Amino acid sequence: MRERMVVIGGDAAGMSAASQARRLKSPDELEIIAFERGHFTSYSACGIPYWVSGDVVERDELIARTPEEHRARAIDLRMRTEVTEIDVAGGRVRARDLESGAEEWTAYDKLVIATGARPDRPPLPGMDAPGVHGVQTLDDGQALLDTLERTEGRRAVVVGAGYIGVEMAEALMKRGYEVTVVNRGQEPMATLDPDMGRLVHEAMTGLGIAMVDDAEVTKVLTDADGRARAVATDDAEYPADVVVLGMGVRPETALARAARLPLGEYGGLLTDLAMRVRGHDDIWAGGDCVEVLDLVSGRERHIALGTHANKHGQVIGANVGGGYATFPGVVGTAVSKVCDLEIARTGLREKDARAVGLQYVTVTVESTSRAGYYPGAAPMTVKMLAERRTGRLLGVQIVGREGAAKRVDIAAVALTAGMTVEQMTALDLGYAPPFSPVWDPVLIAARKASVAVRVAGD
Amino acid sequence: MRERMVVIGGDAAGMSAASQARRLKSPDELEIIAFERGHFTSYSACGIPYWVSGDVVERDELIARTPEEHRARAIDLRMRTEVTEIDVAGGRVRARDLESGAEEWTAYDKLVIATGARPDRPPLPGMDAPGVHGVQTLDDGQALLDTLERTEGRRAVVVGAGYIGVEMAEALMKRGYEVTVVNRGQEPMATLDPDMGRLVHEAMTGLGIAMVDDAEVTKVLTDADGRARAVATDDAEYPADVVVLGMGVRPETALARAARLPLGEYGGLLTDLAMRVRGHDDIWAGGDCVEVLDLVSGRERHIALGTHANKHGQVIGANVGGGYATFPGVVGTAVSKVCDLEIARTGLREKDARAVGLQYVTVTVESTSRAGYYPGAAPMTVKMLAERRTGRLLGVQIVGREGAAKRVDIAAVALTAGMTVEQMTALDLGYAPPFSPVWDPVLIAARKASVAVRVAGD
Repeated sequence: MRERMVVIGGDAAGMSAASQARRLKSPDELEIIAFERGHFTSYSACGIPYWVSGDVVERDELIARTPEEHRARAIDLRMRTEVTEIDVAGGRVRARDLESGAEEWTAYDKLVIATGARPDRPPLPGMDAPGVHGVQTLDDGQALLDTLERTEGRRAVVVGAGYIGVEMAEALMKRGYEVTVVNRGQEPMATLDPDMGRLVHEAMTGLGIAMVDDAEVTKVLTDADGRARAVATDDAEYPADVVVLGMGVRPETALARAARLPLGEYGGLLTDLAMRVRGHDDIWAGGDCVEVLDLVSGRERHIALGTHANKHGQVIGANVGGGYATFPGVVGTAVSKVCDLEIARTGLREKDARAVGLQYVTVTVESTSRAGYYPGAAPMTVKMLAERRTGRLLGVQIVGREGAAKRVDIAAVALTAGMTVEQMTALDLGYAPPFSPVWDPVLIAARKASVAVRVAGD
Repeated sequence: MRERMVVIGGDAAGMSAASQARRLKSPDELEIIAFERGHFTSYSACGIPYWVSGDVVERDELIARTPEEHRARAIDLRMRTEVTEIDVAGGRVRARDLESGAEEWTAYDKLVIATGARPDRPPLPGMDAPGVHGVQTLDDGQALLDTLERTEGRRAVVVGAGYIGVEMAEALMKRGYEVTVVNRGQEPMATLDPDMGRLVHEAMTGLGIAMVDDAEVTKVLTDADGRARAVATDDAEYPADVVVLGMGVRPETALARAARLPLGEYGGLLTDLAMRVRGHDDIWAGGDCVEVLDLVSGRERHIALGTHANKHGQVIGANVGGGYATFPGVVGTAVSKVCDLEIARTGLREKDARAVGLQYVTVTVESTSRAGYYPGAAPMTVKMLAERRTGRLLGVQIVGREGAAKRVDIAAVALTAGMTVEQMTALDLGYAPPFSPVWDPVLIAARKASVAVRVAGD
């Protein structure tokens, strides 16, 4: 009997699931219908800042696979078609053609929810004014670029100083803007501890970006034409010819909520290890709309990241296609850069550890990316958290220049393996003068952390 | 009672041991005497190619700690003094002052053997002629630089195409030499499988280096003054104004052999996990003169690498100083570069796996260092070996450009943790377009390898 797989959402998770299922099952065995409300499929939202900056010239470079390419693989992809309801009991979804407005029900045997995330945009006055832009979708990116083309002024305000915010600050600076970043946190990059965020603040200031921390935006002020002209906080106004919102995202789960599917603390869908929605044998979910297990804390988290979405899609596609795969969870790795400043983190911050009852020691070391005598050796700061008593690695944060970001992968694997910092001191990491000091910065941190664990005692 | 620690060899392992022991025990508790036959202590031999190339300007930049600095920390360091005999039964060593020729016995309570390695230089005609240079010690490096200053011709022949050979090829090319590398292996970099070594051959050829593989050097031809003028193989002669020997090293264990200390298959000292020489409670050994446990194959290997020597020294110093530390072993990680070509390996090659009875699958993937659309994305080839049936990771080799070398650390940690390639597919590695495709090249290899393991079946 031919089954039907229905996919809601045509980006990384949804289309990876569809593609993987198609690899395992022929069109005679499995019909695949995918609904996408936007204009694009399978694109790299993470690449948008680099398109805005001009590093990536053509929008289409960000598209991994076009609708036509998906269709050529026997996936019935319906663009500009929005699913408006999931009827779990009836095993069907209702979808609206956004051009014609026509709606129809489509039955499914297997449903994949990959509705992604939506920007976390507070309902403040002026937030929807012309000149205020999110950068969540390719459509958003195009709208921002259109504004930048039309705008003569060179003052940009970025609201938010997480990954999107700092990357957009670089992008706008590269386009010749005077950039102000307004951030409600104590320091930029709230995914780091404040002491490491401080290093990012200092480096961004050094790059000529005006950093305003501890500042809550109250409204966007507009001019006589209704266009954004400034961003206001309780204390001040920051003139802006363009405003970019980079405040993070939340799971887009309105449909799932209406269908009474299980949601977690952050509003994301809850799944089992096979990415099946809990309690629902025929419904899977993946990508930015789900919560994932944090292997270090044992808690669910929401992390919107293309690399996870792709993995989820693979796992879902394998399972829907009759294979077997699981997504065991994450350790919370993330890397970013602002010009030549590299920022990386994995595992728990101090406050994450405290929140789950873990006691810890913390050490911070300064080292270099290469042997000190080798040309281009750049400073690098590594912070490491280890559990008190057991010495288990809990987290690593790195701020530096070349070679800082991907070094965090060492810690990501060690966290996954449950290593102690003492065990890490013996890791056989690549050493040659152009690539590392004789003691890699991560090893230096591990050595210091293992001493700190012993000194802390019982 | 004050004890005496005697150290033979004043480079990384020996002086790290001395320094670490000194941190734990005061001069009142522990006297430390160290013998070094050369002119330098604690220097980076790995940095010599970059000094020869001119990347590192001053020799002294390669010296981590001078004799004076060691002495200031209450280490009785005796330079230009060669230990000529170890009297194990008597608990003493005989040392000769190389300037005066005077010899004397020194008693020890704890002995540390850190005699390093010696170049693997076959006894062929002309090998000792002027113009033929090893690059093992700072003295060697200085002698080579002196020759380069004096020599008008611009033809250099490098014998050997391992790490030292390829790094010296780059160094001499940077100094304006026409470089020929004569290598007895099928491909350069015999620490890689030949298919990956082939990529190095091609890249080096592309850089303008003449690569002669499968060629056994039979002699160095000399001119009327006795100076080297060419390198001869069975088939051909390669004219040379300077000859550099980069053929690897063997453990320097003549003293240990004479003292009937236990040596392994490669002539290196055998120790326990605390770096204590097997069967000898008061003798430790570390650095390039020992064999180390390969955690993947379960066999002893000889690996001369500064990063291991430093770790050994730390472990020995901790144990001699009354603390506790172990060196659990290596996974065989090594990284190198030739101009912008990066070369990395960890774990077992195909022939290593076969030699210990492991059956395996192998996959090779092509990917890029950054997201394909991000400027500067460079090709990268990753080869992965996984055990048949279990899927346990056995080894990874990477050849590419920027970002290729240190990516091998991911595999180094995974090997240490005993991960399967299937487990690796779920690793939470850092992703952002400037640093990685959405699937990191190592993850792509792991996915393909896990499929290969399943296809291979039982």
